[in-house]
Formats: sequence, C-alpha cells, structure tokens
Amino acid sequence: MKHGGNLALAVARYGGVTNDWLDLSTGINPHAWGDGSYANLLVENDWMRLPDTTSGEALIAAARTAYAACETLTFAATPGTQAALSMLARLAPAGDAAIVSPTYTGHREAWHAAGRSLREVENLDEAGDATTVILVNPNNPDGRVLSAETLLAFARKLAARGGLLIVDEAFADVAPQTSLLPYLRDEPVAVLRSFGKFFGLAGLRLGFVVAQSPLVRAVEANFGSWAVSGPALAIGRAALSDQDWQQRMRERLGKEAAALDAVLGKVGLPVSGGTALFRLLVHADAITLHESLARRHILTRHFDEHPTWLRVGLPGSKEALERLAEALAAASPVTAD
Amino acid sequence: MKHGGNLALAVARYGGVTNDWLDLSTGINPHAWGDGSYANLLVENDWMRLPDTTSGEALIAAARTAYAACETLTFAATPGTQAALSMLARLAPAGDAAIVSPTYTGHREAWHAAGRSLREVENLDEAGDATTVILVNPNNPDGRVLSAETLLAFARKLAARGGLLIVDEAFADVAPQTSLLPYLRDEPVAVLRSFGKFFGLAGLRLGFVVAQSPLVRAVEANFGSWAVSGPALAIGRAALSDQDWQQRMRERLGKEAAALDAVLGKVGLPVSGGTALFRLLVHADAITLHESLARRHILTRHFDEHPTWLRVGLPGSKEALERLAEALAAASPVTAD
Repeated sequence: MKHGGNLALAVARYGGVTNDWLDLSTGINPHAWGDGSYANLLVENDWMRLPDTTSGEALIAAARTAYAACETLTFAATPGTQAALSMLARLAPAGDAAIVSPTYTGHREAWHAAGRSLREVENLDEAGDATTVILVNPNNPDGRVLSAETLLAFARKLAARGGLLIVDEAFADVAPQTSLLPYLRDEPVAVLRSFGKFFGLAGLRLGFVVAQSPLVRAVEANFGSWAVSGPALAIGRAALSDQDWQQRMRERLGKEAAALDAVLGKVGLPVSGGTALFRLLVHADAITLHESLARRHILTRHFDEHPTWLRVGLPGSKEALERLAEALAAASPVTAD
Repeated sequence: MKHGGNLALAVARYGGVTNDWLDLSTGINPHAWGDGSYANLLVENDWMRLPDTTSGEALIAAARTAYAACETLTFAATPGTQAALSMLARLAPAGDAAIVSPTYTGHREAWHAAGRSLREVENLDEAGDATTVILVNPNNPDGRVLSAETLLAFARKLAARGGLLIVDEAFADVAPQTSLLPYLRDEPVAVLRSFGKFFGLAGLRLGFVVAQSPLVRAVEANFGSWAVSGPALAIGRAALSDQDWQQRMRERLGKEAAALDAVLGKVGLPVSGGTALFRLLVHADAITLHESLARRHILTRHFDEHPTWLRVGLPGSKEALERLAEALAAASPVTAD
C-alpha cells in the first residue's frame, strides 16, 4: 500500500472482516475527541446550510490559539492537508524544488501530479538553489526534528531568492514545542497543520495552511468557497478550543507510545524513531514481520522503498496491545533473535 | 451578498437572531434527506478513519445509478461542486472560454481566480471559437433549459477543435429529464452534479465531476486523496440509493413551488422562471422588496448586476409560506400594483 489507512485492501488480501482487524498502519490517534457520534454537538444547520463566514472565522480563531500562532499569520482551512499540499505544489514559486527525505510520500506524489519535479535531499544543506524546500517536522516516519531557529534562518535565506519553505507539521500536536508557528513572523514559510491525526478524526477532512496572506488567499481561491464541511467547522472549533483534552491526550499518547516501545523491545525490536502517534522499526526482516502480522489481521505500514522499515501505530487499548504482543511472539523467527 | 446562503451577514445588518430568520436566499431544499443527525447511519469509523477506496467506489456506484449515467463515464467525488468548478477553471483546455449568461457567478469568479478570462455570451451561437464553453442547465436563476440533443451536437463541434463543454447540472435533480448524463458517451463534456442542493445537505460538501477519464483523473490528482469526508461518503451513498425518497421529494418540491408561485402571484409578483428549488421574480422594485423582506427577517437573493431580479427559495412549511405571504402583503406599495 502506498499510504497507511487502506484497510479494505488488506482485508481483500488477507481475509477477515474490517472490524476484526487491528489497524496500526496510520499515525491517527485511536482515541478520538468527542463522543464518536457528535449528535449533541452538531445542529441540523451544520448539515443543511452552506457553511457561513462566521463559522469559518470561529474555527480559525480556535486554531490560532491552539497552535499559538502569531496574529500576523493568515490561516486557510482546507478539506484535509492532502488537498492543501496538492495546492501548494501548484502555487509554490517557479523553479527547482527539494524535499528533505525520506519522508511522507504524499508531497512527492502531489508535485508529480502537478507536473513539477521535486528533488529528494537528505538535509537542508543539500537543497542548493531550490526555490521551494519542503520538510515534514517532526518527520514521518523517523521523527526527526529541526529546530525553529534552524528553519527560520533557512527561510530567511530562501527569502533572498524569492523562495518558499513548506513545513508540514502533521504530527506537531503531540510535540507542540517543535512547531514553528509561535516563532514565525514574515518569513516565506507555509506551515501545514492536520486536524484529523491528533484529534483522531481523519474522516472529518480538516487541515490548515498558515502563511503570509497572499499565498493563503491563493490557496483559498483554488478551493473556492465552502470547501470545508459544516460538521468539520463545528467539531474542529470545539475540539481545538478544548485545551484540557489536548493536554491530557498528549500525556496519554506519550505513555501509550512508551508501552508500545516496551512490547516491541521485549521481542527484540528496538524502536529507532517516530512520534507519540507512531513508532518506526528498522529490521532486516521487516517485510516478513509485516506479512506475519497481516496474516493475524494486524495491519502495519511497510515502505516499498525502504524494505527494512516498519511503522507501527498505537494499538489504543490494553487488549489491542496484548494482541499485538501475542502476534509478535508468534511471528518468530523474525522476533526470536 | 455575492451568493445566497450567508445569513450571518444579513443578521449583522438587519438584526434578529439566525434561528428566527427565514432564509430563502438559496436554492437548497429545506427538507433534508435523513433524520437530521445521522447518528444512526454513521459509525465511528466514518469520523475516525481516512475514507477508504471501497467507500468512494460505493458512493460513485450509487451516484451513477441515481443519475442514470452511462458506464463509460468516469466520476470523481469532490468536496462540493464549488471546489470542482474551481479545478475545472484550471484544467480546461487552453484558449478562449465563454459562459452562457446571465447565470451563477461562481464560474466567473473561479475563472478570474485562475487568472483566465471568461467571456459572457447570451447563447451557444455566440460562443464563437471559444475552446471551453460553460452552461448551467437548468440555468440559475432563470431556469432556462437546453436539450441534450442541442448540447451533444454543440459538444461534437467543440470536439473538432479540442474543446470542452462544462455543463453545471446543480439543479438537475428536480428535473432529471434535463440531464445530459443518460445520453453522454464520449463527447468532450464535463458534467457537474451537486449533492447538497436537492438532498438539502449543503453543509456536507459533496459534488461530482462526470466526464471522460483523463479529465476526471486530473481533477482527482488536484485534490489528492481523501478530499471528501467519511460522513459525506456514507450519507451520500445512502441518500443517492434512496430512489423512493428522490421520487417523492421531486413531487413534493413541485407542489411547494406551485404554492409559492400562487402566494407571489396573489400580490402581483408573477414568477418569470426558476426550478422547483427557487423562483425568479423580475420586478422594477426588486431591491425595495428585498429590503422590505429583510427588515422582516426574510432573506431573499438579489443580484447586483440585475437590480430587477429577486430569487426566492422554498419556504419549506405552511407556516413559513404564510409568514412570507404576510410580509409580502405588508411590503406595499411594491406589491400593491
């Protein structure tokens, strides 16, 4: 699979029924914000009416506060960050582009779909004279983080040649100290934020582009009015305003990631990176392990281009963690050494 | 207001609270499909997971059947038709473009946002050698309909010069006999369908582009994966499969439109066009009437460029229709003649 999250394909290949699978192939929080039905939060008009301007403004005000972003930055809400990064591939300045790799492949696919080439580089120093540079921070899947100081200094260099730095902060919610948003002022940077991953509501399709006004307005013009649904506006606003939940969830996910590391470590699978929402294993038999788990209807994420990698999301419950532990124990000889 | 549907602006200007206003400014069905909360239809995974391929395919199969579209046509689901028509403004063939006017202004805005000019013409004959021609059918707001025969013949002429005909069928659900989809084969036509208007769920953000495969694939690539939300996939599929409801609703809306016409006629306001979801008045004092109704917290749609026009949506209940009738009676002298 090219991305995590397509459980239906795994079911077609390995059998079983969707609800019996343990899907660890994504970095989506298994503990969704809210009650899971939202019937008490949403009103009929969220479904029936075209979303109005004030709902959009209220959502963005909540996002600005949650992300501690400077007042001078402009936000656009989008139907997920995937759509937003596809737009940026079309709107970024003309000229060469580079992406710090290995990383999430969605950017590369979007640039190719836009008919633009994107050079893969190992670090910012290798970006050369690229006018657009893309970076996922914290990086997916290895969790690498570059400091705000480093990124802002780099953005100022890009500014001198009319460039743009795109920082995809899809997983910054679990590590808010890594976000550029509290420090960004007028540098040529577009920050992408994902609502669905940390809040466990990937089906809602909500993300943000945060940047200087002209670029954000161009993104909005590309989508036209009303690209974000009424339910996403209402739920997004309520969840982003719920700072208590966010703080408690960060602590909970940190503990669950540590518990997952312990289970993996016990069968000789040391974690080499990740964030609190996913862990990266590097192991010679990663593909065998992926298949062995899939036969037990546990879906992990393997990487065609990096056959020794395996990304494992949080199981989300004690029972699910035990199921994973048992499946790993049964997956010998991979985990026997 | 540039578009209907921004009740918040009207409330800011004329006072009152949103829920006490009667919003007749849109062409959205006031009788939404389903129970208004969808708590029994949606499962947690619709909110939590990335929408998977099979959900998208099931939605499109339901749409294909509901729209009686030929199997050779390709569908893309989009987060509303506004986003889809914005994409088409960027993906349509190079060269001149023309739109049959007056019509919905969203197309013109999208083309301007895309940096492309769009010539307004009164009919297809005036399109000259434009490579892209856009038409809303039935037209908004006057309800003008061009036949499938006329449109297909025109599309074949466009084909000879590598052109594209864009047919926006936003209101074709209430008049399925006007749709091109049962007749379209391999002509260079992109048909836009709106889910939210007829099903009364504009907040859901769901629409379709139906065309030959390369154009549809390009639209999808522009959005990237997962642009349509999980709730939209599930509700859209269920509603589009509910053909009984669709048939009953067409009859109901026809009757309600006739009842609205009777109320308007009674105060000397003859309806000059429209569809079963909205009626168009042409009257010298349309602006005065709009303002008089707005002071009574009834929002209609006026048109800056056509000051004698007023579009009135369906009130949706006997009480609301009576409220409109009383407000119209009080709006003399406009309606006294």
